[in-house]
Amino acid sequence: MKKIVIIGGGAAGAKAASKVKRLNPNNQVELYARTNEIAYSLCGLPYFIEGSVKKIDDLIIRTPEEFEKNGISIFLNHEAQKIIPEKNCILINDNHIFYDELILALGAYVDLPNVENVNAKNIFSLRSLESGTLVKQKMQQSSSVLIVGAGYIAIELIEAFTKNGINVTLLEKNTRIASDFDNDFSSHIQKMIDYKTKGHLKCHFNEHVIKFNVDENYNFVSATCESGNEFFADFCVLATGAKPNVLIAKESGIKIGITGAIEVDSKMRTNYSNIFACGDCAQKYCIITRQPTYIGLGTIANKEGRVAAINADGVGYENFDGVLKSTITRFYDWTISKTGLTMQEAQNHAKNINLEPICSSITKNDKAGYMPNVNKMTIKIVADKRSGEILGAQGIGWSGNITQRINTITSALKSRLTVEQLLHLDLAYSPPFSSSIDPILTACYQLKEMMKK
Amino acid sequence: MKKIVIIGGGAAGAKAASKVKRLNPNNQVELYARTNEIAYSLCGLPYFIEGSVKKIDDLIIRTPEEFEKNGISIFLNHEAQKIIPEKNCILINDNHIFYDELILALGAYVDLPNVENVNAKNIFSLRSLESGTLVKQKMQQSSSVLIVGAGYIAIELIEAFTKNGINVTLLEKNTRIASDFDNDFSSHIQKMIDYKTKGHLKCHFNEHVIKFNVDENYNFVSATCESGNEFFADFCVLATGAKPNVLIAKESGIKIGITGAIEVDSKMRTNYSNIFACGDCAQKYCIITRQPTYIGLGTIANKEGRVAAINADGVGYENFDGVLKSTITRFYDWTISKTGLTMQEAQNHAKNINLEPICSSITKNDKAGYMPNVNKMTIKIVADKRSGEILGAQGIGWSGNITQRINTITSALKSRLTVEQLLHLDLAYSPPFSSSIDPILTACYQLKEMMKK
Repeated sequence: MKKIVIIGGGAAGAKAASKVKRLNPNNQVELYARTNEIAYSLCGLPYFIEGSVKKIDDLIIRTPEEFEKNGISIFLNHEAQKIIPEKNCILINDNHIFYDELILALGAYVDLPNVENVNAKNIFSLRSLESGTLVKQKMQQSSSVLIVGAGYIAIELIEAFTKNGINVTLLEKNTRIASDFDNDFSSHIQKMIDYKTKGHLKCHFNEHVIKFNVDENYNFVSATCESGNEFFADFCVLATGAKPNVLIAKESGIKIGITGAIEVDSKMRTNYSNIFACGDCAQKYCIITRQPTYIGLGTIANKEGRVAAINADGVGYENFDGVLKSTITRFYDWTISKTGLTMQEAQNHAKNINLEPICSSITKNDKAGYMPNVNKMTIKIVADKRSGEILGAQGIGWSGNITQRINTITSALKSRLTVEQLLHLDLAYSPPFSSSIDPILTACYQLKEMMKK
Repeated sequence: MKKIVIIGGGAAGAKAASKVKRLNPNNQVELYARTNEIAYSLCGLPYFIEGSVKKIDDLIIRTPEEFEKNGISIFLNHEAQKIIPEKNCILINDNHIFYDELILALGAYVDLPNVENVNAKNIFSLRSLESGTLVKQKMQQSSSVLIVGAGYIAIELIEAFTKNGINVTLLEKNTRIASDFDNDFSSHIQKMIDYKTKGHLKCHFNEHVIKFNVDENYNFVSATCESGNEFFADFCVLATGAKPNVLIAKESGIKIGITGAIEVDSKMRTNYSNIFACGDCAQKYCIITRQPTYIGLGTIANKEGRVAAINADGVGYENFDGVLKSTITRFYDWTISKTGLTMQEAQNHAKNINLEPICSSITKNDKAGYMPNVNKMTIKIVADKRSGEILGAQGIGWSGNITQRINTITSALKSRLTVEQLLHLDLAYSPPFSSSIDPILTACYQLKEMMKK
């Protein structure tokens, strides 16, 4: 029997608490959360704003009462102030809490631009259920919105807002939308988004906000950019990405990795053997490059929370082997998705891990050409010319047709399959689901030809 | 430059002809087909009968004229009578045709029950575009049909017929529907089919047809079974499975494998080094068991035709490494799919390839529980307890949600991933596409627990 303290009630913390209690009901488990919200799905917020999810409470996976019923003590509105590893102690709301094992699930915070009036009223970011409710309320009284950022949350918000009749202006300091995809894919995505939003979206790139302008009540009015351009809207949402929440860890001597997140080993252990970190505050390792990397995603947080719990309990053990940074985003009835390295990333890594990246981009019917509702889909596969190893894939297409391809590659990446091995993959085929030679295989045929040269 | 003769114009033959010409435009390529139909999609027939595919000609992938334009000589209504390997010669329509390389793409035939009046009028099977047209015409004048067989073509035909208001009686000698799935999955499939067809389908199992009854014009009237039961309908479709077409190969000393199909090596070569076989007439090899097996599928035929062509051309080479017998079937807005071994198959192989099969069947939401249109899906994963190696998977669920899971496993099977390796697979996650812990991973967690015991 151990006392296991968990800091943070997001996906990772909630999972860790449940798991560690289930592993041994004698474990004394305490979970401390900074706010009064725990175990909720942040990923669901765009669908609440859009209207698919009717009540904000639907996004609560488990209530504090349910945790308590399972014997887990929940402390809401408790802010961790200081960790004292030498004493196995953490200062929370000015009380010293002792632990045998500590699991840090500190989450991430929105990387707010450091500019004037960024905290004005009607400027929102999405890191809590409460913020989702506020954005939805504001949307319902508005006709226009400014989104700052152009990643997948921005894309999900474009859908949510335009479906609700709101005109969207998007400001992005980068040169293109979805810049975690390759350049050519950004173009595909941009075209698809423009087509679907039919003039209700204006995207402005190379626009770096330097100041938000407010009225006498400190209400957001407009954003001024470096270019001198000023953009007006009823309200503003900052979708400027997330940064790992590591401050109290750092101040306590817990090692921070080169990505700015808490360094962990494969057991999710920090440099203190009884302090674990998991979820958005913890550094990730890329399965392909074997390099540290960072991404904040609920599905990874969940897995890491489970692994941290098993190792904190300590009867068994579990390794977390790393991530592929797989993402998927719905946009109306279209889907964009990626896994592993983009061509750009592969080229960036080319020198330090000895890659010779090649890629093939295939646009092809997503089902047999004679079927109704046949659509074009594009899949791009990146490989290493020398070894033939598949390095990553990006896909855009209608509805579920992309998930099946990207997750097939996810599994191939995990086992370092080569172009040659993937070439004859016996993918399930039937006219409603694929052409008889799947786009993945067509891309591999093309990659094989490239390897010859 | 070589003279390459291809016998058969289905998926494998058409692919082989095109590929061998593309590899070297100087190759003299002749394709001989028994009927006047070549390069068509048999898999599309149920969707033509159903009505999704409007014209039967939409199922033609390439016309004889298009082949001819590419320099491939097409001979329709030419029946191969005898192969004389010693002379590199084949007798076709009483003419001796000489070849440097011969590619046999003889296809398969419907395994008609050997019973009285099986050739009566209004008893159909689906092996040609013409048969598709006839079945559709007959359906449009009818109100009831008897389907003999209960595999995936039968299931696709149930959809086609019931959507057109036809009452279907299904007769199957086996004890259950879709008997290539495990017992428990057959039950899932039966429930789903009964639910969707709302009383317009009656399935009778353990019914072995011993006689078809006809009227004075030799029109089909009813089927009498061993049980003594007699089943009436306006017409009958035999979906009793396919057998490899090997007669002329066998008579010419080409080796037939234990599955009854032509034995081939990884180059798709028969026991004669310049005679290749591909598609439904050729034996397959299971990637998992490494044993000979048989399945007739367009997507495999396509791959094998390509490999046979490359090796017949002989400048390069290519190996075909085998199949996973992956299949997928749409039924209304549901999908059933499988890849690799079922639990039953794994148990059957347990002794000869030293398996200790375990399985986990997970029924779970196919997307985040708070999303609209959330449906339950069931996935069953089979693994080897000793090595942890994944052996196969079966899935049933709504629309595209099954393809993404089964093809993920397909890729895992190819690389012999273990439960442990699949456990943390970084599958692309977003609320419209998955729960944050994908059903695949939940099944793996469960398998891991089983492995401990």
